[in-house]
Parts: sequence; C-alpha cells; structure tokens
Amino acid sequence: MDFDAMFEAQLDSLREEGNYRVFAELERRCGAFPKARSHDDDAPDEVTVWCSNDYLGMGQHPVVREAMKTAVDQCGTGAGGTRNISGTNCHHIALERELSDLHGKEDALLFTSGYVSNWAALSTLGSRLPDAVILSDEANHASMIEGIRHSRAQKVIWRHNDAADLDRKLAALPANTPKIVAFESVYSMDGDICPMDEIVEVAERHGAMTYLDEVHAVGLYGPRGGGVSEARGLADRITLIEGTLGKAYGCMGGYVTGSASLCDFIRSFASGFIFTTALPPAVAAAATASIRHLKQSDTERQAQRAQVARLRARLDAQGIPHLMNDSHIIPVMIKDPVKCRVLADILMRDHGIYVQPINYPTVPKGTERLRFTPGPLHGDADIDHLVAALAALWKQCALAHAVA
Amino acid sequence: MDFDAMFEAQLDSLREEGNYRVFAELERRCGAFPKARSHDDDAPDEVTVWCSNDYLGMGQHPVVREAMKTAVDQCGTGAGGTRNISGTNCHHIALERELSDLHGKEDALLFTSGYVSNWAALSTLGSRLPDAVILSDEANHASMIEGIRHSRAQKVIWRHNDAADLDRKLAALPANTPKIVAFESVYSMDGDICPMDEIVEVAERHGAMTYLDEVHAVGLYGPRGGGVSEARGLADRITLIEGTLGKAYGCMGGYVTGSASLCDFIRSFASGFIFTTALPPAVAAAATASIRHLKQSDTERQAQRAQVARLRARLDAQGIPHLMNDSHIIPVMIKDPVKCRVLADILMRDHGIYVQPINYPTVPKGTERLRFTPGPLHGDADIDHLVAALAALWKQCALAHAVA
Ligand SMILES: Cc1ncc(COP(=O)(O)O)c(C=O)c1O
Ligand SMILES: Cc1ncc(COP(=O)(O)O)c(C=O)c1O
Repeated sequence: MDFDAMFEAQLDSLREEGNYRVFAELERRCGAFPKARSHDDDAPDEVTVWCSNDYLGMGQHPVVREAMKTAVDQCGTGAGGTRNISGTNCHHIALERELSDLHGKEDALLFTSGYVSNWAALSTLGSRLPDAVILSDEANHASMIEGIRHSRAQKVIWRHNDAADLDRKLAALPANTPKIVAFESVYSMDGDICPMDEIVEVAERHGAMTYLDEVHAVGLYGPRGGGVSEARGLADRITLIEGTLGKAYGCMGGYVTGSASLCDFIRSFASGFIFTTALPPAVAAAATASIRHLKQSDTERQAQRAQVARLRARLDAQGIPHLMNDSHIIPVMIKDPVKCRVLADILMRDHGIYVQPINYPTVPKGTERLRFTPGPLHGDADIDHLVAALAALWKQCALAHAVA
Repeated sequence: MDFDAMFEAQLDSLREEGNYRVFAELERRCGAFPKARSHDDDAPDEVTVWCSNDYLGMGQHPVVREAMKTAVDQCGTGAGGTRNISGTNCHHIALERELSDLHGKEDALLFTSGYVSNWAALSTLGSRLPDAVILSDEANHASMIEGIRHSRAQKVIWRHNDAADLDRKLAALPANTPKIVAFESVYSMDGDICPMDEIVEVAERHGAMTYLDEVHAVGLYGPRGGGVSEARGLADRITLIEGTLGKAYGCMGGYVTGSASLCDFIRSFASGFIFTTALPPAVAAAATASIRHLKQSDTERQAQRAQVARLRARLDAQGIPHLMNDSHIIPVMIKDPVKCRVLADILMRDHGIYVQPINYPTVPKGTERLRFTPGPLHGDADIDHLVAALAALWKQCALAHAVA
C-alpha cells in the first residue's frame, strides 16, 4: 500500500486551498527581542517579530535566564523520569506552590504544556465524573476540544461568550448531572475577553463547575498577573484555572489550579499527566522566576498596554481596519488564505516584518488574518515602520482593486 | 454539586487498593548523579536513585549542559510561539536534522514529549487514513493507547510480541484496508525486546505500515544510539520510528521520523503538534548535543551494560528473583501494591536507596514491582550496597513468611 501517495494527496488539497504551512525559521536573539535573525533565504537577515506569544519578552529577561542556567548546573538538563518515577524535583514543587499562590487556590498541578493540561484535565474530568456533561464555548481552543472529545462525555456547545445561551443550555440538563462549563478568558485569535462575571453567575446558579483557560491572560492581566479572573476579582469563584508557562512567562509548560482534591484527582488519574517525563527542572525554575517577577512588577504590563494602544491608534489614523477588543491582540482581517500569505511574504521580504499569516485550522476558513502582538520591547520606531509598511500595502491593494 | 466529594471518593478507592501515589521530592545533583538530595522528611538527606530513566546520566553531561546554557543566552528561555506562529527556531531545525540522520530517515518532526508524539501521530494517522485499522501490541504504552483511542480508528490487539498472532490478525483484514502495526522495541516495565525482524516481515507481507516506539532504546542500542532498529539493521524497513529526548538523552521532547511525506502529513494535520508552544530552543540544543555525543561515543553504553550485568549477577548470587530480558531494565517482581510500597519505603528510609514502587495503572494489578535501571554512573559500591539491602530485606521476609 502506497502510504506516501495517500499523505501527498491530502497535502495537495491543503496546497490547493492555500492552507499549506511553511514555517519561518528564526534565531531569536536574546537581548534584542523582538528582533530575530531569519534563516530563510527570501527574508532579510534581521527581522522584527510581530506575532510572538512571548508577550512581554520574559524569555530574554536576565532573571529568568539566570534561573534556568543555575538550575541546569544544579540539577542537570532533564527531570530523568515521570513525576511518579524519580521525576519530581524540588523545582517542580516550588513552581506548583507559586502557581497556587498566583491564583489563590489550594493546589496546582504542572503539565508539560498548556495543550496537555487542557487535554488531560478535561478528558479526565469528562470521563471519570459519571454522566458528566461538558458545556463548551464554541470558540474554545483545540486542546480543550480534543480533551472533551477524548473524554467521550456528552458535549454541549454554547454560543461564543453568550451567558444567556449557556444559561438556557444548563437549564435544559437534569439538576443532578455533573456539569462542567469550559471557556477562556482571552480568546487568542480575536482577542475578545469573556463576560466572566455573567458566566460564573450562571454556572453557580446551576451548580456547574467552571473550567477557565487563562492561557493568553496569565502574566498580563491582574495586579499580580493572575489573569482576567484576578483582574475582575473572580478567581475564587472559578473551580479550575488553567494556564501556560509558554506565553507571557516566556518558558514552557502548562498547569491547572484548584482545590486540593481536584488537583489530586487529576494527578492520580490523568494519563497525560502520569505517563510522561516531567518538565526539565531548569524550565520549572525559569518559569518560577518569571511568575515571581511579574507578581511584583507592573512595568512590563504597562509598557505593553502603551504599545498596544499606540499601534491601534496608528492603524486607525491610516484607516487600516482591525478587530476591536479589550486585550493586547490586534487582528487585521484579510479573509483569504492566499492573500494573507502574500501580504505576510511581502512584509517579511521587503520590510523585515515577520507576522505569520493565520489560516485554517487555527481560525475558521474565510477569517484569515494577520495577528499582531505588540509588546513592551517594540519601540515606537518599530510601530512606525510597521504601520508605514502596512499603509503602503493597503494603498497598493486599493489601487489593484480600482484597476481590476 | 459537591465535586470535591466526588473526587475524594475516587481517591479513597485508590488508597484502599494501595494504589495511591506519593511522589518522592528530589533535588538532582549535577555532577553527583545518581545521587540526589531528598526533600522528604522520612528519607536520608542523600539518596541513590535506582529508577531514573536518564539511563546514561546524559542530563548532567557537561556538553549537554553547556549546549543548553549557551542557547539560553543566545535565544532566551522559551520558543515564544507554536511552530507555525513564530516558534520555529534554528535549534529545532538542527535537532530534526540530527534525528532524521540518527534513524536514516528522510525527515523528522519534533514534539513537546514522547507522549505527545505517540498520541498525536497515531491519532492523526488513525483518523485521517480512510478506514485505517491499527494493530496494537497488547503491552503498548498509554500514549499509544490514547492516540489510538482518540483516532477512533478500528483497533485490533495482538498478543504481546507474538508475530504469528499479528500475522493471523492481519490476514483477517481486507487486503485494501490501510493497516498500521504499532509496537515498541524495549517494553519499559518488563524490559523485554520485541522480535522486530519477524514483526517487520509479517507487516511487509500484508502491506502494513510499521509504527515503532523506540523510547526506551534510543541512545542505548545500536552503534550510534539509533535504537534496536539500528542494532538489528531494520530501521529502513520501519515506516515510522518514534522516540523521546527525555530518557537516555537526558532532556525532554519527543519525535517521529519517516519519509518526508509522512512527517509533512503529521506536521500539517496533527492537532497535538500544531496547537502548542514549541520546545524551548535551549532544550532542543541540549538534546542535539546529547544525540551527537552518543552517536560518537560508545563508552556510556558499554559501562551501562557492565553495570546491568553486574547487578544481575549479584542478585542471582543472593537468590533474589528478577525478570530476565535482553535489556537494561531489571524488574524485581513483588506482585502486591502494599508490599511493594513498604519495601520501597524501607529501602529509602533505612538505606538511602530510592526505587519507586511500580503499581497500577503503570503495570497491571498483581504485577507490582521494583524496577531497577543501573547506569554507567552507578559504582560497584552502589551495587553492593543495593544488593546487601535487598538481601537483608528478603531474609526478613522469608522469616516473616516462615513464622506466619
Ligand atoms: C487558548 C489556548 N489554550 C491552550 C494553549 C496551549 O498552550 P501551550 O502552548 O502551553 O501548549 C493555547 C496555545 O498554544 C491556547 O491558545
Ligand atoms: C514506551 C513509552 N513511550 C512513550 C513514552 C512517553 O515519552 P515521554 O516521557 O517523552 O513523554 C514513555 C514514557 O514516558 C514510554 O515508556
């Protein structure tokens, strides 16, 4: 059987749709973020990264780097085992304490990634709570969708950010059914933020557990970086808060926080937690340092907000449409996979601006976009350069449109 | 609804069975492996780790540590994005090249862990190849089982390491059905090695794809550490080889290798590859250094083999029964979860010997064991100390048995 031919046939349809992905090969340059060296032939040597999820540049912060290197020399490069079999290091325990403190929860549980934490936690809750029903916001991330799918629990999808729809769907379920309401705070592709107070209130009224993904919010919102749930004073009313160490914290890893029983339950039953090598202690140490820093320091968050506001204002001034939202994410909608890639290619090649075209399956077909994430390390000149390049492109497109 | 009570009820049954897990909190001590500092109250300060999967101590190797620290200073602590969205770093590409070279394959694809590579690759193959049937060795690892489950493809289980049974089961399937034979080289809990030549031959005869997990073999077998498939000269006849960077290579991460089309296919469609932050470039750099070292150097493998043989001989001399196999894994069967834990506790508390009791769900109930993994860094004196402690315990048990 010619398996390669089967693979190529499916890849060909991606290519035809314009959804075949080419990864930009970068060499991040510590001390120079968001600048990076490009290893791609048709890009300038130095580019400015405009689509990183290392939102605050903590990945190059000296405190975080030092913590990582120190732990490498102290404990080595790997954990050497699963958490149960020789892989639990003091740096994991310290990080779990830091995380439960961050969210004001009894306990926390570390995973190898945010993807795995969502997948493992939801699949465990959904499969082990008898007759559980998971009510999932329709815009939830792939990792939650796959976790729910894996659990084989009944799934009810509610309209995106619509607490009234959630209310109706909860009301339609038997009172004594265990219900899990799964949603995100900041939706990463549109940058919109959920009506958390309403969702929590509705869930409480129906006795449902709340499962909140704060992946694009931790480190960035709340006085200590505890996310939107901290900013809005709702953390203690959320049953489980999930987050990542790979975005604003600049490292890698994921976690859930909640009651001691909840964490112990997932710890004890989740295949994706049990059967895998633990995070390198040095990565845990770096993440701990990053969280600690952002608990104390608001400087990075303020600078980020300033640059986000600045880019928005400059786009508005040039008449370049972007999705409005209350977050740090600025999506410029292109709505076509091929155009989106062409624009991104020109920005990279002619302007040294790296913004990845976002296409299916990351966003629904027809909603392709360029997604900009300005951070505290983007200078005013970087913003000027970006907006000038976009304005020039937009003018060309309008022209092309006019003569077409 | 009292969710905590529901969690506690299920935890209570684990406790009653003796299957509730307590993690040993260690501080690995670079330069002193396999010694570690214990952070647990009822353990001596310094313990010898006898159950690490950092089989060769590469996690403390200067070359590996330096590679990690250098890359931290060069590129920072995290990748800053998914592979598609700004997260592909030159260190990932270099590692993928190293891996395809290691196994003599066209291409390789990196994942955040071996667990995720199995889960994502099998679920993608099983769900996207129309009407695929996955033939799974009955002893396969949880990550493969969950990947197969997630794919919802038809699954056929064949008897452990039984190529004749596989043959019968393949013969029973229609000729034009895509078939995937999934198995491991070294089974980590019994330490037995599959009859790879027979399996490959059977699979070829039926036009089936072979999916081989070499997680407990890479770095350890074959002249360049390419695993059992390299040692037996079979790598080019295996469709997909999967491995980890978290065990013999002393770091973290997982991968698959195979044809360019196969890797591109998984790259393009696997949710668990696409929707997650890439490995820290520094972890990739460390893993690359480790693989390179073990491609050149046989010293670590030879020293490991010597210590494995030594421990086996000493156990035999004392009449302590252990499972015989051709690998580096020495299981001493206890066959009871409570006894297994008590023995491990005594070894830790009274002798500073850390060996985690292995219980359900890692092994089937009734097959609980102590699993020893001697490495090149266990000295002869360590082995003497271990065997003396075990002999004393065995004598006590025999006595207890006699008077019972
Ligand atoms: C909403 C959301 N949840 C979870 C994840 C996964 O987190 P991680 O990158 O740590 O795997 C992502 C992105 O990667 C995400 O956007
Ligand atoms: C056979 C097997 N495959 C895969 C894995 C997962 O690899 P990793 O620890 O890198 O997630 C393990 C152990 O953890 C394993 O024993």
